[in-house]
Amino acid sequence: MTTTQRPDGRELDELRPVTIERGWSEQAEGSALISFGRTRVLCTASFTPGVPRWLTGQGKGWVTAEYAMLPRATNERGSRESVKGKIGGRTHEISRLIGRSLRAVVDMKALGENTIVLDCDVLQADGGTRTAAITGAYVALVDSIAWARGAGHVRPKSEVLSDSVAAISVGIVDGRAVLDLPYVEDVKAGTDMNVVVTGSGDFIEVQGTAEGRPFDRAELDRLLDLALIGTTRLTELQREALTGAE
Amino acid sequence: MTTTQRPDGRELDELRPVTIERGWSEQAEGSALISFGRTRVLCTASFTPGVPRWLTGQGKGWVTAEYAMLPRATNERGSRESVKGKIGGRTHEISRLIGRSLRAVVDMKALGENTIVLDCDVLQADGGTRTAAITGAYVALVDSIAWARGAGHVRPKSEVLSDSVAAISVGIVDGRAVLDLPYVEDVKAGTDMNVVVTGSGDFIEVQGTAEGRPFDRAELDRLLDLALIGTTRLTELQREALTGAE
Amino acid sequence: MTTTQRPDGRELDELRPVTIERGWSEQAEGSALISFGRTRVLCTASFTPGVPRWLTGQGKGWVTAEYAMLPRATNERGSRESVKGKIGGRTHEISRLIGRSLRAVVDMKALGENTIVLDCDVLQADGGTRTAAITGAYVALVDSIAWARGAGHVRPKSEVLSDSVAAISVGIVDGRAVLDLPYVEDVKAGTDMNVVVTGSGDFIEVQGTAEGRPFDRAELDRLLDLALIGTTRLTELQREALTGAE
Amino acid sequence: MTTTQRPDGRELDELRPVTIERGWSEQAEGSALISFGRTRVLCTASFTPGVPRWLTGQGKGWVTAEYAMLPRATNERGSRESVKGKIGGRTHEISRLIGRSLRAVVDMKALGENTIVLDCDVLQADGGTRTAAITGAYVALVDSIAWARGAGHVRPKSEVLSDSVAAISVGIVDGRAVLDLPYVEDVKAGTDMNVVVTGSGDFIEVQGTAEGRPFDRAELDRLLDLALIGTTRLTELQREALTGAE
Amino acid sequence: MTTTQRPDGRELDELRPVTIERGWSEQAEGSALISFGRTRVLCTASFTPGVPRWLTGQGKGWVTAEYAMLPRATNERGSRESVKGKIGGRTHEISRLIGRSLRAVVDMKALGENTIVLDCDVLQADGGTRTAAITGAYVALVDSIAWARGAGHVRPKSEVLSDSVAAISVGIVDGRAVLDLPYVEDVKAGTDMNVVVTGSGDFIEVQGTAEGRPFDRAELDRLLDLALIGTTRLTELQREALTGAE
Amino acid sequence: MTTTQRPDGRELDELRPVTIERGWSEQAEGSALISFGRTRVLCTASFTPGVPRWLTGQGKGWVTAEYAMLPRATNERGSRESVKGKIGGRTHEISRLIGRSLRAVVDMKALGENTIVLDCDVLQADGGTRTAAITGAYVALVDSIAWARGAGHVRPKSEVLSDSVAAISVGIVDGRAVLDLPYVEDVKAGTDMNVVVTGSGDFIEVQGTAEGRPFDRAELDRLLDLALIGTTRLTELQREALTGAE
Repeated sequence: MTTTQRPDGRELDELRPVTIERGWSEQAEGSALISFGRTRVLCTASFTPGVPRWLTGQGKGWVTAEYAMLPRATNERGSRESVKGKIGGRTHEISRLIGRSLRAVVDMKALGENTIVLDCDVLQADGGTRTAAITGAYVALVDSIAWARGAGHVRPKSEVLSDSVAAISVGIVDGRAVLDLPYVEDVKAGTDMNVVVTGSGDFIEVQGTAEGRPFDRAELDRLLDLALIGTTRLTELQREALTGAE
Repeated sequence: MTTTQRPDGRELDELRPVTIERGWSEQAEGSALISFGRTRVLCTASFTPGVPRWLTGQGKGWVTAEYAMLPRATNERGSRESVKGKIGGRTHEISRLIGRSLRAVVDMKALGENTIVLDCDVLQADGGTRTAAITGAYVALVDSIAWARGAGHVRPKSEVLSDSVAAISVGIVDGRAVLDLPYVEDVKAGTDMNVVVTGSGDFIEVQGTAEGRPFDRAELDRLLDLALIGTTRLTELQREALTGAE
Repeated sequence: MTTTQRPDGRELDELRPVTIERGWSEQAEGSALISFGRTRVLCTASFTPGVPRWLTGQGKGWVTAEYAMLPRATNERGSRESVKGKIGGRTHEISRLIGRSLRAVVDMKALGENTIVLDCDVLQADGGTRTAAITGAYVALVDSIAWARGAGHVRPKSEVLSDSVAAISVGIVDGRAVLDLPYVEDVKAGTDMNVVVTGSGDFIEVQGTAEGRPFDRAELDRLLDLALIGTTRLTELQREALTGAE
Repeated sequence: MTTTQRPDGRELDELRPVTIERGWSEQAEGSALISFGRTRVLCTASFTPGVPRWLTGQGKGWVTAEYAMLPRATNERGSRESVKGKIGGRTHEISRLIGRSLRAVVDMKALGENTIVLDCDVLQADGGTRTAAITGAYVALVDSIAWARGAGHVRPKSEVLSDSVAAISVGIVDGRAVLDLPYVEDVKAGTDMNVVVTGSGDFIEVQGTAEGRPFDRAELDRLLDLALIGTTRLTELQREALTGAE
Repeated sequence: MTTTQRPDGRELDELRPVTIERGWSEQAEGSALISFGRTRVLCTASFTPGVPRWLTGQGKGWVTAEYAMLPRATNERGSRESVKGKIGGRTHEISRLIGRSLRAVVDMKALGENTIVLDCDVLQADGGTRTAAITGAYVALVDSIAWARGAGHVRPKSEVLSDSVAAISVGIVDGRAVLDLPYVEDVKAGTDMNVVVTGSGDFIEVQGTAEGRPFDRAELDRLLDLALIGTTRLTELQREALTGAE
Repeated sequence: MTTTQRPDGRELDELRPVTIERGWSEQAEGSALISFGRTRVLCTASFTPGVPRWLTGQGKGWVTAEYAMLPRATNERGSRESVKGKIGGRTHEISRLIGRSLRAVVDMKALGENTIVLDCDVLQADGGTRTAAITGAYVALVDSIAWARGAGHVRPKSEVLSDSVAAISVGIVDGRAVLDLPYVEDVKAGTDMNVVVTGSGDFIEVQGTAEGRPFDRAELDRLLDLALIGTTRLTELQREALTGAE
């Protein structure tokens, strides 16, 4: 029925075309160039033996993330945060979210005293950059751990990862709950929610915001259902990307 | 039953003692010194005619917030962000959350071309500072709008506020869902959630994070139930504070 | 004679009502919420064993201070220095003054290799914030040393403090020398002087500035006389606050 | 003869494989993803009507450039300049070089009061990033001017560009002058030179530095000969990229 | 009597050799290279028509000052404040003192809507840099006003300057009050005082600090006597410098 | 022939009057106040035993440079970089150039684990500040090494310096190649080149930029010839300055 169609012709519960170009970087220990439609994020995982000073000697590792956007990733050029000399609130917030989300599936004891930094640089932005970043960063993370195992930095049979992790945005646009919002829907959304989910379907993070009208319990439930449809599909795509030869 | 008791003897669904000292500041257009147990936040609302340049001429107002903590609000002294020369990610994130939460109940057209800045300075911290800040900032906001109406900056009968707003933290501690976590429970929480709710019981913001084990749908539902118990009680306390003579 | 009266009805040599709420903070080792009329400053003393690296191994302690103002302490909201990313000249200058004033009565050898940081945060400002800060910081300092003695960080019978310290502003307003200027007098003062005095009546700091017409030797002498009247009274109030049970 | 061969088997006067992916960005007015071997730089040209305030009303346009490197572009991860809060000397220097190089072929009167910002972000680095950036930025610049002409911001027949511009590195490695140095040769180079040349073979910029032993006039001449071989070839490749349909 | 002699053989009330090289800069509207012994400060006065925005339209001028030290002005090299990215408290404090001191003798109405910036850069430091800066800045200020009068920016007969201004340090060293302390005496001083005085002998600023033992009223009086001896002599030297042809 | 004359009457291949006041600073281990016409740069060399952490234990020394300009060195006052809180691109670039140029003649092994910082502060600017800085810094460097040898920090017979170094600007002004450009010629130059040359006539750095029309090979050759005339003369002047008693 045409009335249910979205600007790009998708169904309400349909993801945009997703591609994961694993091993895009020839420098990083793990990497993925992920795209959710026109949104493209380059995720690299940098593995280094050792941990920050405040963690030394506890036998535990550290995983952190930094998110950034190229100035012309968006339709209008923004200023570089390096030029402004400080990082904006949004950048900080998303970097922290990505770090927390990935740490939720890492067993720091099994990782040992090693550090992994996930850099998620948005090359082109069209909504959903943080969810694409989390989903791509997981793929880069897996490969960096495999690399570290090969290089003898991580014990052979240790289970560093307890699960996989993927993320998607959902929202209420024109009164309808929709999955994976591009920019054009994002600006119209009354409620906007980012959901981070494990491969087994549990929640790591639920962040819902009423941009317009506050939302009720029923709407919240519908959005969560939709998110789980999206992350289930993303989990499959991650698995496919990771089982192909790098 | 003693096993259900919490460190401070509260029931699972019981708030800490809450006090709201309305009009604490003799300088600001609206203010409240709010305490959730030992957490104390000074909230001021600064009203100024006019809006930032990017908003001029649209007939709409602007509400924003800044959150900060005194260096010795906590058990160990932290560095001042002014001395470090930059604001940390956590501060940015909470400032943005407070601003969004209050804007959700403000009709910017009715506010007219005026700006309200909500400053939430944590004088003493013991968990739940952001939720106390939102709850107190609402009281300050109400008074600043009343002041503006008295001073003729806002039209007499305009409905600037569409609802009230309050916030509370909930979490899963030792496997049990609990309301309004002090610091000692916060550090042990497996899941931590901050919920911002209108006076009529709709959601403005839901932010749940698995600090430890990911949480399932049933746990999420229990936490939301608990949050609504808390915000209903806070809404009453706000009403009481606001109906007393300032 | 009514013509000599000041805006708030005080005598020329009369302090504003002073209150010292000792132990306001439940987190700091020492604290005082001091008010000089509408000026209210929260002073905390944070005691930590050890000294900065450049002082290590000399058997001496360190005392330093940081002064700041909440953005809406004043009648018009100012920008946060943390947001501007740098500390202004006035803030620096006052922080340095407070630190010097308190160090003047501390025997660093007796303190041992320990550090005390005095945070003076102005919650509400109506003139005289730096003098209230010094006077309150002394009370917080005393309690932090008592705490440290109890905790075994400072030797039982050592005399860490050689004297007490208090401070007051004086100035020439409408040709008359007056004591303890509120904002309304401060802006009109031709000469403005801050004087820091020990409990035994010696000077630690004398800072006089001609805001308007330069001042002569006789005027300087009258201002110093007045300042000593004020600090003598403040010394008594500090003693009373400190002899009550905390 | 095997002794003359370089680490990657190239001749002394041979470029690495060069690819120019024109129109890589769906957001920018002009763009190119250029690679010199493993070095990959994303160049975007952002066109905006109007000029900075200091240039207003003179009937002239402005072209500027910003260069940056992703943190994991290199073999070891570097800190982000946005996180450090300032831009390093090398970044500043290269940004200025790119801007000057492109401005040398732009007729600012013909551009009119419009601004073009060239962003050159190094996605992967293996030597020669600044020369790849200049060469790719020229392609992006051409397309942004074509776009502006189409959009009516630039007069139909005006000659905005007086020539094309390309750049290459040359150096003395193990006593031999070589063209287009990858990282492994760059670190061993006794002399390192970057040369920016117009399509007609004139110099825009010559920057030669003795990293080890100072160089004599004969060596300088050999390096310049080699550079012109390289830029002549790059000029052809730019032309091919620009004559294909975007 | 030899016991009263100081390290450099001076009498207690004797200045170091003072030289004032007026018009040292060929660029500034007024300038002086002043030396108090080995302390050398380059003072320039930059005159520009117009005032900062916050002062526009009030018919008044503005005078401000910036003080700085070259990194190797002192015996051990210090870091550059430009490299550290922020200005230290001491620099701020002295800049503010110089500005206040000079403004005290300027009639802002007579200056008209013009701005004078006094830059005081310490080329070599050996104690007393702030007092040399004030004394030299006055000479530069006089010449910049003469220049402005010549260029028609200031009305012909207006009295822009109400008096001259000079400054000197005094202190208590080994129990004796001494005038104009070099570094070697400064570090030993129990009390350190900087006094800014008009040509007619009134005080603009009195800043006395007990570095060691607090000082009593009698000591304060002796220091002020000594300071006036010094500033009287500096006033003569300024007059001589200014009456010679530039 | 009068037509070849320049604004200040010099021949095309003639330097401005050069003076080198060796040992200007009484604090630094080596120093020179150098002037090229009205351009005056104070160069100090600060010698400290030890090297930065990243170089420790390799038996090698470190030489670095910092360039800066006083705010009123130029015809119009510029802002202080310390006040702006960051160093501009030009400053960074010149500091790096000076450091590289001096390091090119230093044998780091012979220097041993010692650090020399060259500070080049422009007191007055009239074109050619970076070349004057390099030429003067060499003199300061020589004296600091002599000082270090005397103080026993450098082995008696080690050859720390392999050659001398001097620098000069050349350019094409009104179609003619000229030597040592003052500001008035610099702004008109079509091509601007800075050349750093050793005492034996080899190149350390060649930086040529087409400010206007790109330049051809023949022009480049003429500029290099001219530069060598200049640096040969500067090398003699350095030798004279260094052979006189300091």
